[in-house]
Amino acid sequence: MEFDRGVFRVPVYAYEVRRSRGADGGFFILKKTENGKLRVIALGGLEQIGMNMTAFEYGDSIIVVDCGMAFPEDDMFGVDLVIPDISYLEENQKKIKGFFITHGHEDHIGAIPYVLRKINAPIYATKLTMGIIDHKLEEHNMLNSVRRKVVTYGTNVNAGDFRVEFIRTNHSIQDAAALAIYSPVGTIVHTGDFKVDYTPVFGDAIDLQRFAEIGKKGVLALMCDSTNAGRPGFTPSEKTVGKNLDNIFAEHANSRIIIATFASNVDRVQQIINSAHKFGRKVVVEGRSMVNIISTAIELGYINIPDNTLISIDEIRNYPDEKTVLITTGSQGESMAALSRMANGTHRKVQIKPTDTIIFSSHAIPGNEKSVGKVVNDLYRKGLDVIFQDVHVSGHACQEDIKLIYSLVKPKYAIPVHGEYQHLKAQERIAESLGYDSKHRIILSSGDVLEFDADQNAKINGKVKTGAIMVDGLGVGDVGNVVLRDRQHLAEDGIIVVVMTLEQGSGRLLAGPDIVSRGFVYVKDAEDLMEEAHNTLYDRLMELEDHGVSDWSKIKNEVKTTLSDFVWKETQRSPMILPIIQEV
Amino acid sequence: MEFDRGVFRVPVYAYEVRRSRGADGGFFILKKTENGKLRVIALGGLEQIGMNMTAFEYGDSIIVVDCGMAFPEDDMFGVDLVIPDISYLEENQKKIKGFFITHGHEDHIGAIPYVLRKINAPIYATKLTMGIIDHKLEEHNMLNSVRRKVVTYGTNVNAGDFRVEFIRTNHSIQDAAALAIYSPVGTIVHTGDFKVDYTPVFGDAIDLQRFAEIGKKGVLALMCDSTNAGRPGFTPSEKTVGKNLDNIFAEHANSRIIIATFASNVDRVQQIINSAHKFGRKVVVEGRSMVNIISTAIELGYINIPDNTLISIDEIRNYPDEKTVLITTGSQGESMAALSRMANGTHRKVQIKPTDTIIFSSHAIPGNEKSVGKVVNDLYRKGLDVIFQDVHVSGHACQEDIKLIYSLVKPKYAIPVHGEYQHLKAQERIAESLGYDSKHRIILSSGDVLEFDADQNAKINGKVKTGAIMVDGLGVGDVGNVVLRDRQHLAEDGIIVVVMTLEQGSGRLLAGPDIVSRGFVYVKDAEDLMEEAHNTLYDRLMELEDHGVSDWSKIKNEVKTTLSDFVWKETQRSPMILPIIQEV
Repeated sequence: MEFDRGVFRVPVYAYEVRRSRGADGGFFILKKTENGKLRVIALGGLEQIGMNMTAFEYGDSIIVVDCGMAFPEDDMFGVDLVIPDISYLEENQKKIKGFFITHGHEDHIGAIPYVLRKINAPIYATKLTMGIIDHKLEEHNMLNSVRRKVVTYGTNVNAGDFRVEFIRTNHSIQDAAALAIYSPVGTIVHTGDFKVDYTPVFGDAIDLQRFAEIGKKGVLALMCDSTNAGRPGFTPSEKTVGKNLDNIFAEHANSRIIIATFASNVDRVQQIINSAHKFGRKVVVEGRSMVNIISTAIELGYINIPDNTLISIDEIRNYPDEKTVLITTGSQGESMAALSRMANGTHRKVQIKPTDTIIFSSHAIPGNEKSVGKVVNDLYRKGLDVIFQDVHVSGHACQEDIKLIYSLVKPKYAIPVHGEYQHLKAQERIAESLGYDSKHRIILSSGDVLEFDADQNAKINGKVKTGAIMVDGLGVGDVGNVVLRDRQHLAEDGIIVVVMTLEQGSGRLLAGPDIVSRGFVYVKDAEDLMEEAHNTLYDRLMELEDHGVSDWSKIKNEVKTTLSDFVWKETQRSPMILPIIQEV
Repeated sequence: MEFDRGVFRVPVYAYEVRRSRGADGGFFILKKTENGKLRVIALGGLEQIGMNMTAFEYGDSIIVVDCGMAFPEDDMFGVDLVIPDISYLEENQKKIKGFFITHGHEDHIGAIPYVLRKINAPIYATKLTMGIIDHKLEEHNMLNSVRRKVVTYGTNVNAGDFRVEFIRTNHSIQDAAALAIYSPVGTIVHTGDFKVDYTPVFGDAIDLQRFAEIGKKGVLALMCDSTNAGRPGFTPSEKTVGKNLDNIFAEHANSRIIIATFASNVDRVQQIINSAHKFGRKVVVEGRSMVNIISTAIELGYINIPDNTLISIDEIRNYPDEKTVLITTGSQGESMAALSRMANGTHRKVQIKPTDTIIFSSHAIPGNEKSVGKVVNDLYRKGLDVIFQDVHVSGHACQEDIKLIYSLVKPKYAIPVHGEYQHLKAQERIAESLGYDSKHRIILSSGDVLEFDADQNAKINGKVKTGAIMVDGLGVGDVGNVVLRDRQHLAEDGIIVVVMTLEQGSGRLLAGPDIVSRGFVYVKDAEDLMEEAHNTLYDRLMELEDHGVSDWSKIKNEVKTTLSDFVWKETQRSPMILPIIQEV
């Protein structure tokens, strides 16, 4: 055992220690359960990008890192968001010692309101992260029912057989943390999303010394952010954006400036405010999600706003255009976001004018390229100046940054996390280039249980239930595959409803077949087509009647087959056909 | 008048000439109609990317450049393709002298079968382009009803008051042409899609001399490809890809190689075949559209295949993996294309194995990034080597190439074409940097009529009807906005059908209300929900009966309101509600 500046260090190979109170009352010695194994369980986020959630289990203790949500895939019609299946956590309720959140982005905190409704365990996070979580819980009326504990960098949290330390990192949101997870089997360092920024806009640079210190003691595994593992070189400092913003402000001194960026990028907002202040402009922040996060950041002291700089959106009309800056959501071309509404004239307070300069201080998230392009084209068409080059840097580490972390931490095992599979593979190749053989590079799939035994041998051993739970409106998990398949069918070709009234007993056709369609093609001779369809169906129904067929399911099947054959022949389409029979 | 090597030159300002037979019998002197004006009419492609089509009108003559189709936007549910509205051409049938096609890509030829069904005019195109058009017309059973004339570079086509010359360019398909359109008011040079390739894989480099010669005589306007106008520098030669392919073949000597690329990129296929031949591999071409185009290219002599290199897909099993290459469609992640089917095990002849090497010799077209990413991730997950860097070059000119063309052609007016609005703007900025003032830079919107008078003054004067006609199955233009809106609604929230049978005369409820839903959420207590909905509706219907309401539209309205209020309250969703009444 070593004590160093009050921080407890776990010798990695010293797993034969017993539980007892630490000298300072706060720490304890990690115990070795009989044949104790450390299990790392990928609960989401590896295949379904966004649902970041990993469980660590040892003996009777489970801790969970992050609790994210994903946005729906294109074929998830009508679904609002997707959260991980937590059956495994529900089954192991009692073991769960806490949720440890690395930073305040939706793909790391978005599932909290849904998951914490079912699991009773405390949340640990840094100040700003917790501020954003608090806001989310408040919206779900859950603020009083969830235990939350704000931690500072360097703090160690005891959680059953685990101890967790928060380490300062940089990212596109402040207060991001890597986690050192100490267990009886060894230490796992989980970076969360991170970049290496030597000159961050707010706060300090990533605590590389601490990574090195922990690395020096011996680290079992590094779970490192892969998002930019395919990109060579280093990620530039956030501060480089500020310089370019200044240049743009200088060049566009005569027009109003509107800047779209990610709602949660507080540092970016800080830099825009800095530029605005420098050039004597007032600043308006617009868009619900951005206002929320910036309010939280102001409240908690994560942003410095010079006096008399921020004004409300109602005040903007009191200032000439060239004295104002609007910071807004909508950088992904989202049709309901403030920027799109300003552009298409549906925003209640601000209309975009041809004299405005628009800056996209962002990049298009994969899948959003087309909608962003649409907004950019619209703005150009309206005659505006649109700027989207050199006004954004990534919040994720590139290849050389990742190599740096590996070289400081020197883990025994490399476990790439965060990013699509191709990015995990890219990081695996980095690890390979650093000398890791295939036994010491591990890519997990959703549900995989990675087991480390007392001798630090790793093995994927078993699988737990995982998956994506769709959230739609008030419902969680009530949109199933059948519903999605139906929606897809309806979206492609529409629906034709056929209604018939039959006489009870005899099964004689009393009314109908009436044919109603929705979302089906509108053909010039639609009425003729429908009449012909009616006649075809009617003839078939009469035939069935003549043959004494009165079984509803048979009749329905015949209606389906007859009508779908007819419609395909006439239009080469396959709408959904829904026969409904009533009896009087 | 000047004659030079048998080619007739139109002095740009000499518009006061009369029609007469040219000396060589093939050309004629352009006449000046009374107050003749040259009109350039943007019929598509400027706002709806892909539907490239421009009409040029002078007096009683109209010529049309290109006839392209677009792929549907995300919100065009169930639509297969989109073609331009040609009302203006239909109204001016008699004036149309011909369609001049710059190259054989879908966004330049795809609408031909639909447009030529309505317009009787000849098509002019180079050999390969026409080969691809022929194939398309054959599929539509129109080969015998459409007049087609193959032209060679340098050929002049007389077309009413116009004369059109085809000029050799380079592009990602062979036989691409720019057009010099000679009119009594002046010459317009239309580049089509092009790049500058000094070392093309097949055929000769772009005819820069001819651009210069025409430019020297004076050019009224340049309509130049803008696709890459936002990209600095020069576009690399197609040959650079061949070198990298060789390196990859050398490095992956022990595995089967599967290469996905654009079906129409014959030069790319040629280079893959070259590499394969060099490394002693047999080649299979797979995917319907690619087989079609490569067959046409082989037939017309646009590809050189060494003996015993090409084998059929059935023969592939006779060769060891390391002796074969598969060239396939599916580079955009299209779920029905050959590559996706090979990857997910639904291809009848080829299954992808973990030992294969996959090369994406392509880039993701905007909007396809996510589906391409999905295929890449799937392949990685299966353990394959996936390569997508340095194995593709663009077929479009970058900024310095565009400047070169401007410097050779030296047009009076710059009219950027092809690309999204942001790309047109990017080219406009290039023109500005070359000294064009705002009067001589013109960006057209769909339907704009740009008029040049006899003194070569330009003015946007009027608008013709344009738009996107959706093609879905057999139907052209039969999917309207109402149908699309319905499909969107159905896709988001599904449908609830309510059926009631009323007694004729009295309006008494005899059966129902029966409630059937499709694509609506499946809630745990769905049956309870539906029963409660039934009861709510039933009560309301009884109330209406008590009040003697028998008007069907009133009853339907009441059903809609009552049910949608109920469903919203219970689930916060708004499915489409379709009440149907029958009477017996």
